[in-house]
Amino acid sequence: MAKFVVIGERISVTAPSINRAFTEKDPEPILTRARQQLEAGATYLDVNIGPAENNGEEIMKWAVELLQGEFDNVPLALDTANKKAIEAGIAVYNRAKGKPIVNSADASGRIEYVDLAAANDAIVIALCNGEGIAKDNDERMAYLTTLLERGLEHGMEDQDIWFDPLFVVVKGMQDKQMQVLEFIKMISDMGLNSTGGLSNNSNGAPKTLRPIMDSALVAMCMMQGLTSAIVNPNDLRLMETIKTCDVFKSNTLYADSYLEL
Amino acid sequence: MAKFVVIGERISVTAPSINRAFTEKDPEPILTRARQQLEAGATYLDVNIGPAENNGEEIMKWAVELLQGEFDNVPLALDTANKKAIEAGIAVYNRAKGKPIVNSADASGRIEYVDLAAANDAIVIALCNGEGIAKDNDERMAYLTTLLERGLEHGMEDQDIWFDPLFVVVKGMQDKQMQVLEFIKMISDMGLNSTGGLSNNSNGAPKTLRPIMDSALVAMCMMQGLTSAIVNPNDLRLMETIKTCDVFKSNTLYADSYLEL
Repeated sequence: MAKFVVIGERISVTAPSINRAFTEKDPEPILTRARQQLEAGATYLDVNIGPAENNGEEIMKWAVELLQGEFDNVPLALDTANKKAIEAGIAVYNRAKGKPIVNSADASGRIEYVDLAAANDAIVIALCNGEGIAKDNDERMAYLTTLLERGLEHGMEDQDIWFDPLFVVVKGMQDKQMQVLEFIKMISDMGLNSTGGLSNNSNGAPKTLRPIMDSALVAMCMMQGLTSAIVNPNDLRLMETIKTCDVFKSNTLYADSYLEL
Repeated sequence: MAKFVVIGERISVTAPSINRAFTEKDPEPILTRARQQLEAGATYLDVNIGPAENNGEEIMKWAVELLQGEFDNVPLALDTANKKAIEAGIAVYNRAKGKPIVNSADASGRIEYVDLAAANDAIVIALCNGEGIAKDNDERMAYLTTLLERGLEHGMEDQDIWFDPLFVVVKGMQDKQMQVLEFIKMISDMGLNSTGGLSNNSNGAPKTLRPIMDSALVAMCMMQGLTSAIVNPNDLRLMETIKTCDVFKSNTLYADSYLEL
């Protein structure tokens, strides 16, 4: 099996310094976070420019060229509600290290992001979600089917649709955690890829707890067949756990130095 | 579901200080390790007195009375190849906090430890193993069946037989790790309990790696339905992971302070 794909989440407008860097086209804050994430073992970098309604195309194009120019065509996830910005980013994207990821579609208002990925030979993150959070795994599976069919109709390979079960917060939705884990197994049993914003689970928990919760959960998820996650690769405990689960799954051959690779 | 049962492994003749304490009937080293393990969250304490061929009965009786006297009838796993020593320990054992555990039977030369547990209304750890390590899960399941039938024939409840899949070392048996994990799921799907010496997986790995490997593996195992493990409860990372997986499984209700409970 392929190694777990870590999509680094730290280049995001939710961080004020990054938000400012996009607005002012200041490369340094973006390059610094990119370097930190890649050194920690990220494969993909997510580039979240926010809604970017006005100058999204320009910003995404700038960011893609900046990051791929500096880091040897690092593969990127293009993350915005502005579809034209994603297309502009893909237009200048170099595929040498991997297809671009469109982040993200859902089975309702954002289903056209599947079409966008299909039209551009991209990967798409497909949230198994419609209006609001799915009630149960039957509903999640119905959304998955809608998204899968949409992709296949538009000529996508099923491996290029990465299904996101939607991780839910323990504080408030503790009783749904096993449901999400079971759904990951259902995706895996269908031979499909999966990903998601795993750290949602620990939202609102004390800061010291979050790496502990995230790393326990990622191990459970990898047991269930999760193939990727959108996470903070600079969470050392989390990355150690991911690399170790890859050893147990024989995705990585064991060496005493496997954490350093 | 019941919380994961941690059996503390640190009162063992494999530690020279404990070996000496058993020989000299010196309570302090034993009580110190008992206290450390209980404070860290162990439920059961394993009492490994070794082969104890000469004075095993006397030593086990002394150890059981010492530990249960000091720690409010703490439940114990009686761990020795000397069957008479186990019986002597059970004779003075107080069940107020849980049945004694007989550690351990296998499907070959040690199958009579099942009978011993049955005759004494004890729990038995049943290694799914015959002569040598099982080749595959069919063989493990054949051993499990032998052990289960033996227990039932002798009037045991199936819940009192805790099946041990036999954890194998990554360095040398990396390709068998998923097999062991799949077997845990098979045990769980049968509604049966499981346990085992989980830290076997990291034998021979650098000391800094072992807690990382053990904690990643315990999370994967708990996802598969493992109900107990024989481990070092003073491995903080491991215990944090166990308590966190119990939260994801809703065996423990989440509170910001759940690690401190």
